[in-house]
Amino acid sequence: MKVHLNRRYRFSASHRLYQERFTAEKNLEVYGKCSNPHGHGHNYILEVTVSGEVAADTGMVCNLADLDEFVHRHVIDPLDISNLNESDAFKHTIPTTENLCIFLYDLLKSRFHHANVERVRVEETNSNSFEYAGGEEIRH
Amino acid sequence: MKVHLNRRYRFSASHRLYQERFTAEKNLEVYGKCSNPHGHGHNYILEVTVSGEVAADTGMVCNLADLDEFVHRHVIDPLDISNLNESDAFKHTIPTTENLCIFLYDLLKSRFHHANVERVRVEETNSNSFEYAGGEEIRH
Amino acid sequence: MKVHLNRRYRFSASHRLYQERFTAEKNLEVYGKCSNPHGHGHNYILEVTVSGEVAADTGMVCNLADLDEFVHRHVIDPLDISNLNESDAFKHTIPTTENLCIFLYDLLKSRFHHANVERVRVEETNSNSFEYAGGEEIRH
Amino acid sequence: MKVHLNRRYRFSASHRLYQERFTAEKNLEVYGKCSNPHGHGHNYILEVTVSGEVAADTGMVCNLADLDEFVHRHVIDPLDISNLNESDAFKHTIPTTENLCIFLYDLLKSRFHHANVERVRVEETNSNSFEYAGGEEIRH
Amino acid sequence: MKVHLNRRYRFSASHRLYQERFTAEKNLEVYGKCSNPHGHGHNYILEVTVSGEVAADTGMVCNLADLDEFVHRHVIDPLDISNLNESDAFKHTIPTTENLCIFLYDLLKSRFHHANVERVRVEETNSNSFEYAGGEEIRH
Amino acid sequence: MKVHLNRRYRFSASHRLYQERFTAEKNLEVYGKCSNPHGHGHNYILEVTVSGEVAADTGMVCNLADLDEFVHRHVIDPLDISNLNESDAFKHTIPTTENLCIFLYDLLKSRFHHANVERVRVEETNSNSFEYAGGEEIRH
Repeated sequence: MKVHLNRRYRFSASHRLYQERFTAEKNLEVYGKCSNPHGHGHNYILEVTVSGEVAADTGMVCNLADLDEFVHRHVIDPLDISNLNESDAFKHTIPTTENLCIFLYDLLKSRFHHANVERVRVEETNSNSFEYAGGEEIRH
Repeated sequence: MKVHLNRRYRFSASHRLYQERFTAEKNLEVYGKCSNPHGHGHNYILEVTVSGEVAADTGMVCNLADLDEFVHRHVIDPLDISNLNESDAFKHTIPTTENLCIFLYDLLKSRFHHANVERVRVEETNSNSFEYAGGEEIRH
Repeated sequence: MKVHLNRRYRFSASHRLYQERFTAEKNLEVYGKCSNPHGHGHNYILEVTVSGEVAADTGMVCNLADLDEFVHRHVIDPLDISNLNESDAFKHTIPTTENLCIFLYDLLKSRFHHANVERVRVEETNSNSFEYAGGEEIRH
Repeated sequence: MKVHLNRRYRFSASHRLYQERFTAEKNLEVYGKCSNPHGHGHNYILEVTVSGEVAADTGMVCNLADLDEFVHRHVIDPLDISNLNESDAFKHTIPTTENLCIFLYDLLKSRFHHANVERVRVEETNSNSFEYAGGEEIRH
Repeated sequence: MKVHLNRRYRFSASHRLYQERFTAEKNLEVYGKCSNPHGHGHNYILEVTVSGEVAADTGMVCNLADLDEFVHRHVIDPLDISNLNESDAFKHTIPTTENLCIFLYDLLKSRFHHANVERVRVEETNSNSFEYAGGEEIRH
Repeated sequence: MKVHLNRRYRFSASHRLYQERFTAEKNLEVYGKCSNPHGHGHNYILEVTVSGEVAADTGMVCNLADLDEFVHRHVIDPLDISNLNESDAFKHTIPTTENLCIFLYDLLKSRFHHANVERVRVEETNSNSFEYAGGEEIRH
């Protein structure tokens, strides 16, 4: 009896979308106003989905306290009220929400072991969200 | 690294649920008040899900500007502030939200090629939503 | 110790904004697409605010069961899944949400007496809402 | 053309998370404040997902009136404004939201036959939700 | 230049509405299912409104850190994951949301002095909220 | 019959809270992480409230098209996807949301004349919002 648990976290950050290998014109064409040199920002919502058997004695898939402790330490503390472009995570990639999803999924998948990490979803605005469920997904 | 992108759009429209081949009694039995001759309406939310590899240079699955341009031209402009029963899309089918989903998915799947169209979801009210992911889904 | 109670109700309806005394051009100029002859629709949210002293024995301003019974009988039953232009309430006025607010406030103020009716708010879409608190408000 | 329909219902209930086979210390370690002897409560949101072919004549997957009738009779009436620990459903299991999901899925799957019951999702708070799609899901 | 600041907090609790001076029949008549002996619960949202001049040097009405510290210590810590009937606050009054509003307003008004406490709003469910702005309001 | 109309707009921006006249220590004490040199960002929601008599012929307080045109030209176009610290509006004041409210209210009050501008509310996050209704409010 495998149950999925979705848990939502919130953080606010700024970013600038700008590819150094592109000309200024190309950046404007690709990213529009999102390439402006002073950046802009969002209230991001991170939804982590984990799954597992429901333990017969506790009735739980995973103790939320464990997931909260991990996400607060490794995600919220470093990213909340930050500029994503300054983060080590985005030294070599552009802080689009696509790349943010992949970074967060890989972080959780490789280091959180209290349940099976299934998917990461990041809402950038009320209208946009992005999801990543790992590389194997491609073969489906 | 295949990422899914969900984008939400809003439009307001009216519809009447009424099957001409049914008697008035049968229409009332099937559709209840939704068959009243003067129609009623909703604020619909359309969520389009597309997927694709994240391009190494842009960090994006698909340029939102392309998706927005397509959806505004082909969906929002013709359907917002309209009566669905009067639309060409519903000349031969009843404008239930199920049929609206199929119409919108087929339109996007056949004509939007900047990313892989995965699914269309339409929220009719705060309590109801419908999803369609194409005919192949049946074989799963 | 006067407490305010806000209670939300939902209904779906269609309307067409069209002033018969205007020319078609003037209607289009004033109402835009909202004047299209086939109408369009919304999921309306009605929020009723009543106030009163908290009764010492019950700890309540007003029994919600009384408010619900009134609103369902006099508002939701006649207006849900309807076309507002066909309602008796809009025989002589245009079913803008401004006029809907005034109609609903007057109905509640004149006939609901279990608490003091303070205000009516109607949300037409996620972006628009209208409020009416009675004519005396003008003198403030 | 298989369409999914999601329908949301709301109910309020209290529960206490406490495993009788555990010591008080172990209960506190596992459930934290959720093990307090007087219980606490939530506004739960239940989202039921059913699927099916869209009937050519009605344009519908399933008549919402049938789903509503079932869910109100078998879920909302017994669980709304209740203490889950007192329910027959939780005589032998702990009323975690994981177990609530499984209970509701099994109830719908075994007794609602107007469409294919795909999944049950229960939102416990604005930040937590749980999903169950049946035991076969494990083999995927 | 007086600005109002609204800050939202969330907590989950159970309560039972039952007046000991009433008969069981009278309790059922007044509170309906809310009088059931095992209680039920909600995810409450508390919105605190404070006001003040915007300080010229900081650009702030009140440091949110001060408000958060107060509310977490005096409201969230004691009430989250609790049974309101067991709280000292409700030894002599019934834990209706009306009385909860008055209790929370009086607590903030008498002990939080970093800004002017204007109003307390408590959302009990998605459909109900209650507001209290102090006793002087009556004279208006 | 004076009706209030609330209209919501959304924009995303970054800001840094930092008072040049303060030491770095004082900035950290006052603004916490919000003073970090690289800034952070939000999805702001602006709600404008205007009021007026409902015109007998149109049934409207104010044509939304006029309000939308003004707000898009004077607020959304310059502020969306921007860094508030770089805006002319914040050359001499700190871009707290309090100051943003006052700036937006003054802009609307002085230049939008199709209805009476009553109030501006800005939501900075899901938990914080700020309101400003002009200087005269102080005398109440």
